[in-house]
Amino acid sequence: MEQFDNVSVIKKANVYFDGRCVSHSLILADGVRKSVGVILPGATLTFNTGAPEIMEVLAGQCSVQLKGESTAQNYGAGQSFSVPGDSAFDITVTDTLHYVCHFG
Amino acid sequence: MEQFDNVSVIKKANVYFDGRCVSHSLILADGVRKSVGVILPGATLTFNTGAPEIMEVLAGQCSVQLKGESTAQNYGAGQSFSVPGDSAFDITVTDTLHYVCHFG
Repeated sequence: MEQFDNVSVIKKANVYFDGRCVSHSLILADGVRKSVGVILPGATLTFNTGAPEIMEVLAGQCSVQLKGESTAQNYGAGQSFSVPGDSAFDITVTDTLHYVCHFG
Repeated sequence: MEQFDNVSVIKKANVYFDGRCVSHSLILADGVRKSVGVILPGATLTFNTGAPEIMEVLAGQCSVQLKGESTAQNYGAGQSFSVPGDSAFDITVTDTLHYVCHFG
């Protein structure tokens, strides 16, 4: 499915790390929140989580190391990774990452 | 109005100028297409138009010079500028620009 239908979109984007990550927040018809975004290639970024997240990779390539893990894992198009709540992950993007972030 | 309701969102973003501009395409319930996006501060960028565009500035600050015009004009939150179809504009963003692009 290449699009979300029947959603609300917050017009103003979320901009993190000087624009290295830009996302837009969505609210689905059932009230569930998600975001769609991009992370640009470059140095490793550390993201902190509040709620647990599932990051679904639509396109691009990244290496992810979850807080407390000793190794990183690579993810590309069609793959996902899960991050616990109140945690963090380091992400190194090598090819512009397009993603959907699912919360909770 | 801070959000669009009852729209479809293309999951994959549009990334221009090495990520200096990131937008997401929307399709409204009546079939009208718009996009919501961000342009990061930095050097002047030149955008070409196919259809005419109205750029609605939600936040940030920019200077815009339309093709064929001899002077640039400044735009900030709450302001809009119109660009003819099959034309171009130079934009210099001085404070991260959040926008809605209306086509046609």
